[in-house]
Amino acid sequence: MNRIRTIALDAMSGDHGAEVVISAAVHTLRQRQDLHLILVGDEAELTEGLRRQGRDADGASLSIQHASQVVTMDDKVAHALRNKRDSSMRVAINLVKEGRADAAVSAGNTGALMATARYVLKTLPGIDRPAICTALPSIEGHSHVLDLGGNVDCAPEHLFQFAVMGSVLSSAVDGIERPRVGLLNIGQEEIKGNERVKEAGRLLAESSLNYIGFVEGNDIYIGGADVVVCDGFVGNVMLKTTEGVAKMIGHYMREEFTRNPLTRLAGLVAMPVLNAFRKKIDPRRYNGASLLGLRGIVIKSHGGADNLAFANAIKIAALEVDNAVPQRIHSRLESMLAQGAPD
Amino acid sequence: MNRIRTIALDAMSGDHGAEVVISAAVHTLRQRQDLHLILVGDEAELTEGLRRQGRDADGASLSIQHASQVVTMDDKVAHALRNKRDSSMRVAINLVKEGRADAAVSAGNTGALMATARYVLKTLPGIDRPAICTALPSIEGHSHVLDLGGNVDCAPEHLFQFAVMGSVLSSAVDGIERPRVGLLNIGQEEIKGNERVKEAGRLLAESSLNYIGFVEGNDIYIGGADVVVCDGFVGNVMLKTTEGVAKMIGHYMREEFTRNPLTRLAGLVAMPVLNAFRKKIDPRRYNGASLLGLRGIVIKSHGGADNLAFANAIKIAALEVDNAVPQRIHSRLESMLAQGAPD
Repeated sequence: MNRIRTIALDAMSGDHGAEVVISAAVHTLRQRQDLHLILVGDEAELTEGLRRQGRDADGASLSIQHASQVVTMDDKVAHALRNKRDSSMRVAINLVKEGRADAAVSAGNTGALMATARYVLKTLPGIDRPAICTALPSIEGHSHVLDLGGNVDCAPEHLFQFAVMGSVLSSAVDGIERPRVGLLNIGQEEIKGNERVKEAGRLLAESSLNYIGFVEGNDIYIGGADVVVCDGFVGNVMLKTTEGVAKMIGHYMREEFTRNPLTRLAGLVAMPVLNAFRKKIDPRRYNGASLLGLRGIVIKSHGGADNLAFANAIKIAALEVDNAVPQRIHSRLESMLAQGAPD
Repeated sequence: MNRIRTIALDAMSGDHGAEVVISAAVHTLRQRQDLHLILVGDEAELTEGLRRQGRDADGASLSIQHASQVVTMDDKVAHALRNKRDSSMRVAINLVKEGRADAAVSAGNTGALMATARYVLKTLPGIDRPAICTALPSIEGHSHVLDLGGNVDCAPEHLFQFAVMGSVLSSAVDGIERPRVGLLNIGQEEIKGNERVKEAGRLLAESSLNYIGFVEGNDIYIGGADVVVCDGFVGNVMLKTTEGVAKMIGHYMREEFTRNPLTRLAGLVAMPVLNAFRKKIDPRRYNGASLLGLRGIVIKSHGGADNLAFANAIKIAALEVDNAVPQRIHSRLESMLAQGAPD
């Protein structure tokens, strides 16, 4: 493949500002010759930032697109949409809309990013709401989980649409022909599960997807499903819980290894092993959530991403470009509609 | 306090049957003289089980109450209620109802236990639905989280009632005068939180509880709230997610420490530290969820509990008896109603 993929990077919106994005871009371009990255934001700041890293915007692999505004983490969605039309976030998404970029990556405010992307790019036919999807590690490998906070109250049809999108994503990026799709529920049969989830289960059972039934919270990390579908409230709580548990475990482990000189010594001996372990579940390796269901590729990076994490989000964007994820979601939906599946 | 607390143990319903419950009872009685434990189940089996452990039912600290049936993990709620009136679970709860026991502990089927307890004991005035509450460890200490799966779709008033019950429990068992009560939500302000959660937040803000506002999934394990309130669907997913993350982390850690002879050696050196760490977050130390809102104390043990875990559930039952938890919930509700708080 000789085609150059162009990816617009919102360089201003993350917690750490332009520096992290510039480093991630420079780092990425050192490893890949198939990308053209556009840094979107304050031109002077970006030029200076690049200079400090010994690079300049050559226009071939690296360009700068000026944008005069920044959406802050506290900006309300409506404010960002109405009053920040020249924000780095909006301009990056505009580049996708105009066909000047194949994808956009932003570490900005999730609500504003979701709303801006939806407003500028529009959803695909048959998709009511875009969903936020990320891969989470499991004992078996990983699974794509959606929605992670974009849609708080979901009707069964929305969960169905999420399942289609997740399934296409898993096919496209993991090369799985018929990804196993699970619906997140609480397992105790005797306690009535959520009615909307049950109805979504009925829709999925009738569809051409490889629906494997209900899965529970623990299954996400143990494995068994390639795609796990839930509403954005549950998905967000699940994701944040994961963060919390990992933090607590890290805290108590550090506490034990620093208790006294002997345990410190044990920690020193175990260090390489603990580091290898940490690397395996390093959340930075999973950074980059897809906003699925749009007529274009938008990847949300964690706000606090460092350059390694942001570079991973760029990698995910490139992977989705290579695999034409929105086009594949579109044609999958069309063929399902033709087969009379619920829309 | 010289009073003997009598606790009825459903000895038949857990995954491991009577043996674990008998061991837990014998172990508990070795350490405490203030308890009278009633093993409920098949008399012959229990007598024989006790004999194997070198004990017998003396009637003072240990008795047997015969029950001819067992509720299985697969029994539907309706079936258990209608056709298993002489189950060990039902008989144990009957003992509480009749005042012959101060509390009941069961490792049986959650749905059947919840329904049976509610049917036999009834809910307290002002409580529509009992909730399942457990303490979860955090960096700060622990927090009581409810509901964990008893109530799938909750109205704001139900969440409010859960907050009252959790607050009373935290006061009673932890001795905190004004426990901090948080409402589980997704934090991004720009994305509309769940409407029911927002409405529950309004009710709590107007109440006399020490309501601290919304908390997120990570806060549960980091700390900041003594009580975290959510609906049973979200709570159950959260709890199961925790199990899954912990399992995955354990899996990858074992994998790294067994990779080669060198890492095995490092594992050997680090073993005592890793064990101390494991002990700290050992879920068995947190086994025992309270069914709150009933006119009596019922503790649900994990189905797969071993004797250490089941003994912890007995300890929790005794603690709630000592602190008259149902009575305190009742009077707190009465005083709140008198102040015109929402009911």
